[in-house]
Amino acid sequence: MGERYLASKKILIIGGVAAGPKTAARVRRLDPEAQITILEKGQYISYAGCGMPFYLSGKIHQFEELYSTSYGVKRDPEFFKSERGVDVFTGTEAISIDRANKKVVAKDVATGEEKVFEYDKLVLGTGSNPITPPIENLDLAGVYRLNHLTDAEAIKKALDAGEVNDVVIIGTGFIGMEALDAIFSPRRAVTMVEFKETLLPGILDPDMGKLLYKSLYEQGLEGRFGEKVLKLEGEDGRVTKVITDKGAIDADAVILAVGVRPNVKLAQEAGLTIGETGAIAVNEYLQTSDPDVYALGDCAENTNIITGKKAFAPMATYANRQGRVVGDNVLGGKSTFKGILGTGVLHCMDMNVARTGLGEVQAKALGYDIETITVSTFDMTHYHPASNKIIIKMIAEKGSQRVLGMQGIGKGEVAKRADVAATMINYGGTLDDLLNLDLGYAPPYNTPIDPMVHAGNALKNKLDGIAKTYTPEEVQAKIEKDEDFVLLDVRPPHQFNMRNIKDKRTQQLTLSELRDKLDQVPRDKEIVTVCVMGSRAYEGARILEGAGFNNVKFMEAGMEGWIFDLDDL
Amino acid sequence: MGERYLASKKILIIGGVAAGPKTAARVRRLDPEAQITILEKGQYISYAGCGMPFYLSGKIHQFEELYSTSYGVKRDPEFFKSERGVDVFTGTEAISIDRANKKVVAKDVATGEEKVFEYDKLVLGTGSNPITPPIENLDLAGVYRLNHLTDAEAIKKALDAGEVNDVVIIGTGFIGMEALDAIFSPRRAVTMVEFKETLLPGILDPDMGKLLYKSLYEQGLEGRFGEKVLKLEGEDGRVTKVITDKGAIDADAVILAVGVRPNVKLAQEAGLTIGETGAIAVNEYLQTSDPDVYALGDCAENTNIITGKKAFAPMATYANRQGRVVGDNVLGGKSTFKGILGTGVLHCMDMNVARTGLGEVQAKALGYDIETITVSTFDMTHYHPASNKIIIKMIAEKGSQRVLGMQGIGKGEVAKRADVAATMINYGGTLDDLLNLDLGYAPPYNTPIDPMVHAGNALKNKLDGIAKTYTPEEVQAKIEKDEDFVLLDVRPPHQFNMRNIKDKRTQQLTLSELRDKLDQVPRDKEIVTVCVMGSRAYEGARILEGAGFNNVKFMEAGMEGWIFDLDDL
Repeated sequence: MGERYLASKKILIIGGVAAGPKTAARVRRLDPEAQITILEKGQYISYAGCGMPFYLSGKIHQFEELYSTSYGVKRDPEFFKSERGVDVFTGTEAISIDRANKKVVAKDVATGEEKVFEYDKLVLGTGSNPITPPIENLDLAGVYRLNHLTDAEAIKKALDAGEVNDVVIIGTGFIGMEALDAIFSPRRAVTMVEFKETLLPGILDPDMGKLLYKSLYEQGLEGRFGEKVLKLEGEDGRVTKVITDKGAIDADAVILAVGVRPNVKLAQEAGLTIGETGAIAVNEYLQTSDPDVYALGDCAENTNIITGKKAFAPMATYANRQGRVVGDNVLGGKSTFKGILGTGVLHCMDMNVARTGLGEVQAKALGYDIETITVSTFDMTHYHPASNKIIIKMIAEKGSQRVLGMQGIGKGEVAKRADVAATMINYGGTLDDLLNLDLGYAPPYNTPIDPMVHAGNALKNKLDGIAKTYTPEEVQAKIEKDEDFVLLDVRPPHQFNMRNIKDKRTQQLTLSELRDKLDQVPRDKEIVTVCVMGSRAYEGARILEGAGFNNVKFMEAGMEGWIFDLDDL
Repeated sequence: MGERYLASKKILIIGGVAAGPKTAARVRRLDPEAQITILEKGQYISYAGCGMPFYLSGKIHQFEELYSTSYGVKRDPEFFKSERGVDVFTGTEAISIDRANKKVVAKDVATGEEKVFEYDKLVLGTGSNPITPPIENLDLAGVYRLNHLTDAEAIKKALDAGEVNDVVIIGTGFIGMEALDAIFSPRRAVTMVEFKETLLPGILDPDMGKLLYKSLYEQGLEGRFGEKVLKLEGEDGRVTKVITDKGAIDADAVILAVGVRPNVKLAQEAGLTIGETGAIAVNEYLQTSDPDVYALGDCAENTNIITGKKAFAPMATYANRQGRVVGDNVLGGKSTFKGILGTGVLHCMDMNVARTGLGEVQAKALGYDIETITVSTFDMTHYHPASNKIIIKMIAEKGSQRVLGMQGIGKGEVAKRADVAATMINYGGTLDDLLNLDLGYAPPYNTPIDPMVHAGNALKNKLDGIAKTYTPEEVQAKIEKDEDFVLLDVRPPHQFNMRNIKDKRTQQLTLSELRDKLDQVPRDKEIVTVCVMGSRAYEGARILEGAGFNNVKFMEAGMEGWIFDLDDL
């Protein structure tokens, strides 16, 4: 295999943030004689875009750390030249591709001077651009984005100057949530405005998004959902208010985070095929419609492994992993990037969020016949002092019992669980497989039956008809429709008194007295058992069924999953 | 499926620690009318054996927490009766099984009184017993085990009384290491004595075990390896010294942790088949040679998923997961437990340890044609303040490039990585699959290319002939054989000065000056490049190869993997 890489070639890479430099590094390692050139219109290269929130929050003190190696060397053009033998041109914007003659024209951003670069293989890592929503007065001072290093510098400057007290973040996707994590402080009023019904729409199912919001709300976040920003208002050129279709919000800083769009202008003008998602169409070798032109990272289209459908998924990990694939292939290799599951993880305030595969809403929209379960559990043995609660939602196909997706939130560890789910979904794993996975157990890491296995077992019980459940949403809907049923709370009084469903249907009978007091439970009504996390309610339901009650269900996830007692939710 | 479970049955379970109670819980949930009985010779049931070290260390304050539910209720016979409808007899030891008449004779441990219990299906969860090594004077006061709750109580009492200053732990398997974690303190001298060559023999490969020891040694642990304990000495009936084949060690407390053996006496006497490992033979339904008798947990034999070979693997997670399988099957189900990968995780002092699948030594002994790599890396983005270093060793089969095993140690997160490895090994995953796994990325959780993917890529580079390496052990062996080669250290001076290989072969030339100073590198000698974590040494090696040097390798894992400058290692 080594031999193949010896022919010297001109590899020209457009874009110097993540995908491009990674490609360059791989090419260099494979072929010491390749001529590698990177064109980057900005002033920084090979920087950690995902690290910007940590710079904002002060967790990273030196701005330079965002574009330094782990051993403290700045990744600037000199570094690329001396350590990698790669020519980097910053402040140099590619403006056209002449595919017939294999040339790229670029201009110096400062002087306007044009230069021509030749290539044997061209790599497009042109990234994405933030979407500019149709909101009036976005040019006011105090309006920020968080997409480029220069954005982070500007916000940090305003934060450090003490100018920022009322922050409005528009958009609650990953970037909006990361901005929230970075700037949230009890000393500031932070409001998030979201056009959809809750946080992280499309990333989490609405039930999970609302549970996340409940936790952040309790810490002081104000969320305004189903609300559309119409315009900004300012004084002396600085933003002072955000005006929505439902009112006005004070703001001395606004962070726009309504998403990004692939940057495909150059590719489009060069006649390369653009996919249905608006990103550059590529095959599994990451080749565009021109076999001598590759595309990767945010500007390139991905394929969902489960559905086979095309997806626009601008995630840093794809850009980096694709760099290796393109590096191989521009030198004649046949490496493949098979696709994505849309795995995402996020730390926001004191919550961890993770998801992979298809959500319930997504899966149903695609026509999958699915069942879901939501379980509340501890992330490690409950007696360990570092244990924390988490909520896991699992989505599986009926019949095949194939796992399609998983979402998790909580103060406890959920990222590990998403990685396990992503790995098993990659192989088409089923709920039975989950029980057989040999996940490592020790008290500081998980429970003897790992939370993922617990979720899988619970969903299997549900699919097998052993566990009959309502979700908290379904229980709330029954209450709202004023249905006649009993909400049987099986917790001991001290837990009941802390928080319960304040409703006329609620009846108390602890699990330990249930067997002896069956006569107190009406046999002519539907019974829905309730506890803190769901497992005792399940026990209670099984006791009642065993005693001949034939219309019994329990509430999944327990009171941990109940969000309907907060006025604002 | 629900219907199948309605026939009422007598389910008798012997053993009340983990496997038994889990089976009982599953049976109860499936069949409200089953008569379920648990016999336990000890006084505690359903307790968290794995939590004992946390009680010892003071992380758990109340002894009761080890046998309480997450909602604070003690799991005693009353709890099992009222909440689960299960009859539990503690202090009741089963002494014989009459399989022909489906009866078990048990005796009251206190009174000696015998009782007879009938069964339709019998479940053996008799656990394991600590091995008593041939050491003289084990009956001295101050000699402890850590296998049962009463052991934990005894050690805790001695610790709290301030009687324990010089502790010797005999054996460095999981239990020995957990004991170390629990009792280590700068105020005590703790010595571990191990007959094999380093920590966690058979669990970690020796190179990884030594790296772990290096870190614990720096914190104050004294390890004595390849040393055999012959006898204990005491005064006034209390232990004072441990005498080995190499000397004497002061000791006012000795913890014996030389492993456990399956408790199969009852099964053997009843004529049930005992497997080659000494544990009770079972099929994938966990049925013994008598189809009405099931065995699970420590007393039952497991099957390794990779090799198909039988294994004795006394791990809590297997006992718990098998409980569900046996619970299903005693009621006529066909659930299966497919086998194990020997996944294990451990937190000890400030180190995390994880392993799954086959180790290098194991794989070679079994005749697999393998390649390994050891990589040093950060567990998350290096600029994140919570990032820590980890070392991952990966083992794959040549040809198929199938991943066979993974081992990780470090202050950073490795348990997650073992779970991912275990999941992919479960499906026969390859190194190419690893690059395609959609693991979640965000700076607080990992690196854009996850450490596991990084390790996989590195091993693939090695198998593909792109990366040519020596392990630190191989470099050390070359030095010891006084071979003629150059150890080219490519780090900047400040890193070199902190720690380097003090040898006449060492030459310094930083990566950034290498391209310009190729004439300073001898062309007639083998060159081995070295850096902190291995990746710059790889770059350096590729630069030299590009410049026509044809005998170049780099040292895997870098100085992070170098253990030969500690006198005691």
